[in-house]
Amino acid sequence: MYFVYFLGTAGSGKSTMTKVFGEWLEDHEMSACRVNLDPAVKQLPYFAEVDVRRYVDYNELLESGLGPNGAMVKSVDLILQHATTLRKEIEECLSNYVLVDTPGQIELFAYRKVTLELLRELSGGDKSAIVYLIDSTILSKEENQLDPYAFASLAVLGASLKIRFRLPQVNVINKVDLLSMEQRFQLDAWLEDMRSIAYSVGGEEGTLTIRLIEAIEDSGGIGEMLVSSAVTEEGLDSLYAALQRSFYGGEDYATEEPSARL
Amino acid sequence: MYFVYFLGTAGSGKSTMTKVFGEWLEDHEMSACRVNLDPAVKQLPYFAEVDVRRYVDYNELLESGLGPNGAMVKSVDLILQHATTLRKEIEECLSNYVLVDTPGQIELFAYRKVTLELLRELSGGDKSAIVYLIDSTILSKEENQLDPYAFASLAVLGASLKIRFRLPQVNVINKVDLLSMEQRFQLDAWLEDMRSIAYSVGGEEGTLTIRLIEAIEDSGGIGEMLVSSAVTEEGLDSLYAALQRSFYGGEDYATEEPSARL
Repeated sequence: MYFVYFLGTAGSGKSTMTKVFGEWLEDHEMSACRVNLDPAVKQLPYFAEVDVRRYVDYNELLESGLGPNGAMVKSVDLILQHATTLRKEIEECLSNYVLVDTPGQIELFAYRKVTLELLRELSGGDKSAIVYLIDSTILSKEENQLDPYAFASLAVLGASLKIRFRLPQVNVINKVDLLSMEQRFQLDAWLEDMRSIAYSVGGEEGTLTIRLIEAIEDSGGIGEMLVSSAVTEEGLDSLYAALQRSFYGGEDYATEEPSARL
Repeated sequence: MYFVYFLGTAGSGKSTMTKVFGEWLEDHEMSACRVNLDPAVKQLPYFAEVDVRRYVDYNELLESGLGPNGAMVKSVDLILQHATTLRKEIEECLSNYVLVDTPGQIELFAYRKVTLELLRELSGGDKSAIVYLIDSTILSKEENQLDPYAFASLAVLGASLKIRFRLPQVNVINKVDLLSMEQRFQLDAWLEDMRSIAYSVGGEEGTLTIRLIEAIEDSGGIGEMLVSSAVTEEGLDSLYAALQRSFYGGEDYATEEPSARL
């Protein structure tokens, strides 16, 4: 089993990606087990074979007197108590890929103290990777431009995640179907060489931005950076290939699974 | 008027800091206007002279059919529509300092697209600064150690905020009263020279961590990094001094306000 954790800010498309990437895998004769880790989500666009809402009741916490934010934080912290059960359910899926949809806001998963332990318990000894989704609509600026500071701040957030989880990571700029042709052209240039962002930034934060981008590039980076769209299905094959490279590092890697029940 | 925006992950102490720093200012014969920007918060430890809950009703959004996360995101996006009114209320405070308490999770404020515009509307032409609070309990590891990766990932998150807001920034490691003596000693060594963190990290993420820390240090940094505790009131005077330095940059700065009604 390979574990893929989808992370990203609210609206970056974690749930939709869980759905469409699961379908893509199944279309390619692999199997996917979809895990919902968001205790507060109301509706999901896919059927979650493993769903944390069976064990953690967000509304109960809300009724116990916590505010909505406190109840969310608490409900995520409570998942750890059910980690063994969740792991067992995941094993029963007998799937090639375990696609884990994380809570709506990135902070609830990335910077809670329990998360690293939860991730260890869920993944067991199986190979895991982070897929960090960037919502490309946050990058948009007026007049068909992209905002280099928005791009850089989200890339640096990706570096923070890489340090936090210390797992193979693939970075996906999602919803690119919502970008204009000019914006897409600019994005492709940045992805070709992130240092080219240096031409668009200035001032005190410009220096910081350039140095951080250089650090990300020179140190082997924070993993590959791809584009994708759930609507057009662009990039799903690249995501799969990048995950394979992540799981197998520099070694020869198997893009064809030897069996449908790895 | 000086605007101070308190940002940080849930539990980093934004609301408590708004309360105690406000009291500190008043004890030093300055005046503070406390602004609550969290539409979903249930109880505040201070009286908010300006409170966004008067204009945005989180529960109404929840009842309209949105999930709790969607309702939070939407409610923060709606604040922008009331920016002019909020600005007017803030002006009516006639205060030296405007202390802005932001929503519980950092993402709701930092990575929403509306936030930069909201901030411009609220602050008008007045000087503004970000105070980024780091919850020191996230840094704790067993056996009285600190986790260098947790520290680095939160410092890098601070760099992301600096790029996002492009405002003077002060970084505060909060709740240091909860650290052991050994942990405090380690923290002080890291703050003395962040590069010393290099001794504690290794592997692929180690290289990335060191390069990012160097980038932060060499580029003039992401602003000062202080320690504080709302319980012991440690660090409040340093925070005030750091804010003054932020507002006035390299110039001569006035630690004494010329009037109680700036």
